[in-house]
Amino acid sequence: MNIIDIINRTKNKKELSEEEIRWLIENYTSGIIPDYQMSSWLMAVCLNGLTERETLCLTLAMRDSGEILDLSGINGVTVDKHSTGGVGDKTSLIIAPVASACGVYVPKMSGRGLGHTGGTIDKLESISGYRTEIPFSEFIDIVNRTGFSIISQSGRLCPADKKIYSLRNATGTVESIPLICASIMSKKLALNADCILLDVKYGSGAFMKTYEDAVKLAGLMESIGGKAGKKCRAVVTDMNIPLGNNIGNALELSEAVEILQGKCRNNLYDLSMQLTAEMLNLAGKGSVEECRHMAENAITTGKAYDIFKETVSLHGGNLKLPEAKYKYEVRAVHDMKITGIDSQEIGMVSLLLGAGRISKDDPIDFTAGIVMNCTLGDCISVDDTIMTLYSSEISDFSETAYRAVKALKFCRI
Amino acid sequence: MNIIDIINRTKNKKELSEEEIRWLIENYTSGIIPDYQMSSWLMAVCLNGLTERETLCLTLAMRDSGEILDLSGINGVTVDKHSTGGVGDKTSLIIAPVASACGVYVPKMSGRGLGHTGGTIDKLESISGYRTEIPFSEFIDIVNRTGFSIISQSGRLCPADKKIYSLRNATGTVESIPLICASIMSKKLALNADCILLDVKYGSGAFMKTYEDAVKLAGLMESIGGKAGKKCRAVVTDMNIPLGNNIGNALELSEAVEILQGKCRNNLYDLSMQLTAEMLNLAGKGSVEECRHMAENAITTGKAYDIFKETVSLHGGNLKLPEAKYKYEVRAVHDMKITGIDSQEIGMVSLLLGAGRISKDDPIDFTAGIVMNCTLGDCISVDDTIMTLYSSEISDFSETAYRAVKALKFCRI
Repeated sequence: MNIIDIINRTKNKKELSEEEIRWLIENYTSGIIPDYQMSSWLMAVCLNGLTERETLCLTLAMRDSGEILDLSGINGVTVDKHSTGGVGDKTSLIIAPVASACGVYVPKMSGRGLGHTGGTIDKLESISGYRTEIPFSEFIDIVNRTGFSIISQSGRLCPADKKIYSLRNATGTVESIPLICASIMSKKLALNADCILLDVKYGSGAFMKTYEDAVKLAGLMESIGGKAGKKCRAVVTDMNIPLGNNIGNALELSEAVEILQGKCRNNLYDLSMQLTAEMLNLAGKGSVEECRHMAENAITTGKAYDIFKETVSLHGGNLKLPEAKYKYEVRAVHDMKITGIDSQEIGMVSLLLGAGRISKDDPIDFTAGIVMNCTLGDCISVDDTIMTLYSSEISDFSETAYRAVKALKFCRI
Repeated sequence: MNIIDIINRTKNKKELSEEEIRWLIENYTSGIIPDYQMSSWLMAVCLNGLTERETLCLTLAMRDSGEILDLSGINGVTVDKHSTGGVGDKTSLIIAPVASACGVYVPKMSGRGLGHTGGTIDKLESISGYRTEIPFSEFIDIVNRTGFSIISQSGRLCPADKKIYSLRNATGTVESIPLICASIMSKKLALNADCILLDVKYGSGAFMKTYEDAVKLAGLMESIGGKAGKKCRAVVTDMNIPLGNNIGNALELSEAVEILQGKCRNNLYDLSMQLTAEMLNLAGKGSVEECRHMAENAITTGKAYDIFKETVSLHGGNLKLPEAKYKYEVRAVHDMKITGIDSQEIGMVSLLLGAGRISKDDPIDFTAGIVMNCTLGDCISVDDTIMTLYSSEISDFSETAYRAVKALKFCRI
C-alpha cells in the first residue's frame, strides 16, 4: 500500500478498502505519513466525499487509534450526549443531572471552546475548585454515586482525531460531512456508552449552516453509531438564536443552575427537556412523552438540582460563582421590535469580552459574557436594557457594545 | 489575506484575485506557507480546476518567482520549443539545428528525465565533454555564432515551479491541466523567447492519456502564452508508439545524428520536420508548407548537421559516442505481425536497463537502452530480431527481455 495510490483513489472517486483506511490512519497517527500528504487526501475527501462504508471504516480506525473506555464498572445503562456546538449551549450541564435523576448513568467527557462557541469544560471550570481531570476510577465512582460526572476529554482517546482535527483546522478541510461524522463518532465510540444521543444544530450560530446539511450529518452519524453496535439517535435542532439568555462561562453556569432550580422556562429549558426525553427513551425508560414528564418532574421535585450539587461537590467545586468587575447595559435608543439575532456575532462579541479563545492556549475570563435581556419578537421601549455586557478584563465597552447592537435586527415601532 | 480563505475560495469554486494568487505563490516559495497548506490547495485545484484568468495569474506569479532571462543580446528572432515528453522523444536535438539553419535563433534550456521519459540534458551528456552548464554570456555567444545552444535549466528560473512540482509529485496532485499549464508556461515565459512552440503529446507513452485532454492543455497553453505577450502555438501529436527507433541516451543521440545526416526517414523525421515548420512559420519565415521545404533542405544540404557539430564542439563535446558492454537481441519465435506497442512499458524497460532514473538523484548508464528493429504494422519472420537491448550495467537480460516482449501486441501470421 502507498499513500499516492490512496490519494489518487479518493481523487478519482474510487472506494478505499478497510485495509487502506486503517493503514492510512495508523501511519498518519504514528508520523510515517507527513501532514502534506494527509492534507491532500483530506481535501479530496472534502470535495469528493466518502461512501458510508468508508466513513464507518474511518470512524472505527480513528476510534482504535487510542484507548477505548471500559465502563463495565458502572451499575446500569450508560448514556452519552453530544452537541455539535452553538452559542449559549449549556444543555449538557442540565441534561446530565436530569437524566441521572430519571435512572440512567451519564459518564461524560467534554472539550474546551474555540472561536465563537464555548466548551462545557470551560463552563465547569468557572466553578472554583471543580476538578475536570480526575483518575478514571474516581470518575466511575462519582457516576455510580450521583448518576453523572463530567470531566475533560482524555488525551488517550482518539489521538488520530486530535492530529487530524488540528490539520483540518489549518488546511481548509473542516467542512466535510464524513470527516465531521468520523471525528465526532470516533470519540463517542471510544467513550463507549451504551446509548448515544446526538444534537445536530443548524443555523447562524452553528457549525452546519443549513437544515439540509444538518439532516445529512445526523442521518450519517445515527447509521454509523448503529453499525458500530450502539443505540444511537440524532436530532436536528435550531441554533438561529442563542440558547437561553446567558453567554459566557460563569454566566451560563448560573443560568443552568436557575433552570435546574425550576426558576426559568426559556428555549434552553425546552431543548434540555426534549433532549433528555430522547435520551431516556433511547435507554428504554418509556415513550418520548412519558420520558419528558419524568424529566420535568426531576426539575420540579428538585431531585436533578440535588444531584447536580452533589456531583459538583464530589468534584471539589464551590457553587459560589465569580462575578465580573465591569458591566455595561446596552439600551434601546427608541421603541423597537427585535426581528433577528445573529448568534455567531453574539458569540464573537462574548469572545471579545474575554469569554472565549481565538487560539487554543488563550486564557479565559470566566466572568465575561453577555446576558440577553430580550429575545426574538420582543417589543422594547426607549431606554430599556437590550443586553448587558460583562468583563473583568475590558472596561471600555465601546467596540463590543457597537458590535453587539449590530448583531440584532430590529424595526422601529 | 490568509491561506485558509484562499483554500476555501478554490474549494468553493470561487475565483481568486491576482493579488491572492501572487500572495500565495510568493509566500509558499519563501517558506511562510507550509507544504501541508499548499498541498490542500493543490488538491482543490485538481478537483475544481482554475479559470483561465486564474491560470494566467498563477503562471505569471510563478514566472516572476525567479529570474527572467534577458535575450536582447541575441541577433534575431528567438524561438523556443517544448514537448510534454514521451518515449524516444529526441526532437529537440534535431529541431534546434534545423531551425537555426533556416534563420531563427534557438536558445534552449532543458531538463533531466524522471520515470519512463528521458530528458534532453541526459541525452546531451552522453556526449563526452559536452558542458550543459555554462555562463549565460557564453550561452548567448554560442546562440549568436551557430544559431542554437541547449543547456540545463537554471535553478534561478522559476523556483516556485520547482518547489510546487516536487510537492505535487508527492501528493497525488500532478494530473491537473491548469497546474501542468502553469508549470510549463512559467518556465517558457521566464526563458523569454519571442516565439514558443508547444508539442503536446497524447497516448500510452505520454503524460496526457487522451486526445481530448491534450487538446484542452494545448488550447490553454496557447492562450496563456498569447496573453503573456508571446507568439505561441501548441500542436497535439500522437505518442502511442515510441518516437523513432532508439530509446536511451547515447542511442537517441546517435539516431538524431542519423536524421540530421539525412540517413533516416521514420516517424521521428516526420514529426521533427512538422514541428520545425510550425516554429519557422510562427517566426514569420513563410507559410507552414514553405517552412517545411526550408527545413527539409537544411537536412539534405547538410547545413543543419554542420550547425549541430559546431554547437557540440563549442560546448566542448566529442561526438564519438560511448557503446554498451552488453547487448541482447530479442528474436521472433514464429512469424508474426506487430499490432501494438506500449510506449510507456518500453520506456520502463529502458529505465530498468539503466537509461533512466526512478529517484531524481539516481545515476544514469548513458549506453543503456533499446533499439526497435521493427515498428507498428511490420511483418516479421521467425528468428528475425524484434528489438535489441543494451546495457553496461546489466548482463542478465532475462527480466527486461520478458517485459520488452510483453510490451508488444502481435498476431501470428
